[in-house]
Amino acid sequence: MHGRNHTAQVLRFGQEFFLLDCGEGTQHQLQRFKIKSSKISAIFISHLHGDHYLGLLGLLSSFHLSKRTQPLSLFGPKGLDEILTTHFRWSHTQLCYPLTFVPTQDQEKQVLLDQPRYSLSSFPLSHRIPTTGFLFQEKAGPRALIKEKVLENKLPVAAIQRLRSGEDYLDASGERFRSEDLTYPLPKLRSYAFCSDTAFDERLVPYLQGVDLLYHEATFMEAEAKRAADTYHSTAKQAATLALLCGASTLLLGHFSSRYVDLSNLLSEAQSVFSNSLLSEEGKTYALPLHHE
Amino acid sequence: MHGRNHTAQVLRFGQEFFLLDCGEGTQHQLQRFKIKSSKISAIFISHLHGDHYLGLLGLLSSFHLSKRTQPLSLFGPKGLDEILTTHFRWSHTQLCYPLTFVPTQDQEKQVLLDQPRYSLSSFPLSHRIPTTGFLFQEKAGPRALIKEKVLENKLPVAAIQRLRSGEDYLDASGERFRSEDLTYPLPKLRSYAFCSDTAFDERLVPYLQGVDLLYHEATFMEAEAKRAADTYHSTAKQAATLALLCGASTLLLGHFSSRYVDLSNLLSEAQSVFSNSLLSEEGKTYALPLHHE
Repeated sequence: MHGRNHTAQVLRFGQEFFLLDCGEGTQHQLQRFKIKSSKISAIFISHLHGDHYLGLLGLLSSFHLSKRTQPLSLFGPKGLDEILTTHFRWSHTQLCYPLTFVPTQDQEKQVLLDQPRYSLSSFPLSHRIPTTGFLFQEKAGPRALIKEKVLENKLPVAAIQRLRSGEDYLDASGERFRSEDLTYPLPKLRSYAFCSDTAFDERLVPYLQGVDLLYHEATFMEAEAKRAADTYHSTAKQAATLALLCGASTLLLGHFSSRYVDLSNLLSEAQSVFSNSLLSEEGKTYALPLHHE
Repeated sequence: MHGRNHTAQVLRFGQEFFLLDCGEGTQHQLQRFKIKSSKISAIFISHLHGDHYLGLLGLLSSFHLSKRTQPLSLFGPKGLDEILTTHFRWSHTQLCYPLTFVPTQDQEKQVLLDQPRYSLSSFPLSHRIPTTGFLFQEKAGPRALIKEKVLENKLPVAAIQRLRSGEDYLDASGERFRSEDLTYPLPKLRSYAFCSDTAFDERLVPYLQGVDLLYHEATFMEAEAKRAADTYHSTAKQAATLALLCGASTLLLGHFSSRYVDLSNLLSEAQSVFSNSLLSEEGKTYALPLHHE
């Protein structure tokens, strides 16, 4: 409604594309915003309410019709596998690419992907049915060498790897070359959290401490706080309060009720608590640039 | 693709609204074209390929969220009930309106709705999985009186009903008043057939004899006839041939492959066989006006 679609976000890290939730119409939105859906290597579904996953069956079918071959990982609540299996059985579809399903659980934090440069975890949200958020955390890569200093000290190749990994190097004479003197400071590691549908819940804070960009639903304004509580959703003020409590850098608001045509009041309400609040918009990219500390 | 959506059609007869197929995004299209989806009393699903039904779960959920109370009838292949039940079980949804599911069968014609002014039937199509078309047939209503003649003959109220139903009236003296002299001719009864996904199949002709408006898929052009046969789809020329064989008045083409950006050649191909061919377009209304024979 009002040009707003059901929840779906593409999280990109380097050449890795992840899809977070997949509401109805997601495949059309991907086309519209010229995102090559074939690049998506993993899909994460927060919960099984229709507005967060009903585009999945169409997207998986389109991958099949476009003869995808690369494997796809799917993470989501128990039951999603049964829903998919039922659909594919009745439509007589045998997917032509490998699809791996990993069920999430909604009791505690769970690492879903653990890669050298990042991890992706789920953590419990507070909603009417089992629901998880997702947390992307960048990991430190090798440190960048200060080339002139390395050359100046005529260090051997063996030293380079130690220095780049953050360890000091001792040469045969016992002289110590400190990694922090010969490499640039590491950039601040970036993180992104996705809280799709949830009541305001302080128990989320430990999972989200210091997150750079926090997406938190803000279905209602504070005037509808009772309705928000009854339906296990949040108000803009509550989303902002959570951003404050966990020390987020930026808050991205979303999942707005269709009762709000103009969202400026909703944004103001959040900004009155947490000034660095933004509205999520269809097709917009929110970048997390590298910063050196 | 190219602004074309998955299959869904609204069939309107008086104040009755029916939905034929419900591809992904149908609820958004209904909003976009300002069709009150709450008016839809029955939904007909031709088969369980995603592009013909994946919008159904979202639409049924939206009916629930908008607190629909009026009953809804759903007709579609066996298996659709299991797909819906699985989704509603995992999303913990108890629909707040009565939903009746009637399975269709794909072996012979089956009357699904039989009302005083119309009937709606399914009939088998020729596709990779069980698939039916749908046929709407108007029935004759009461005849309209030629008021001056009725008044001139001073006919009693009892005569009126007989004459309107098409029967003659004999008065006490035995004089015969012929219905066809005292009423206007009936308008031609209208019919509409919906052939969603099918190979070219002459066995469809008996179901479609003399249909006013025939919607027939034309996924490919004749140059792709082999591919059409392999995938149990039709070419534009085949759709036109079928329209010719069954004596349709107008042919409406649809379900175009995304390989065709411009559809004018596809239309020309159909028109070379059956001149009264049209392309179906998003949001367009195809009226069947009343005609007196």
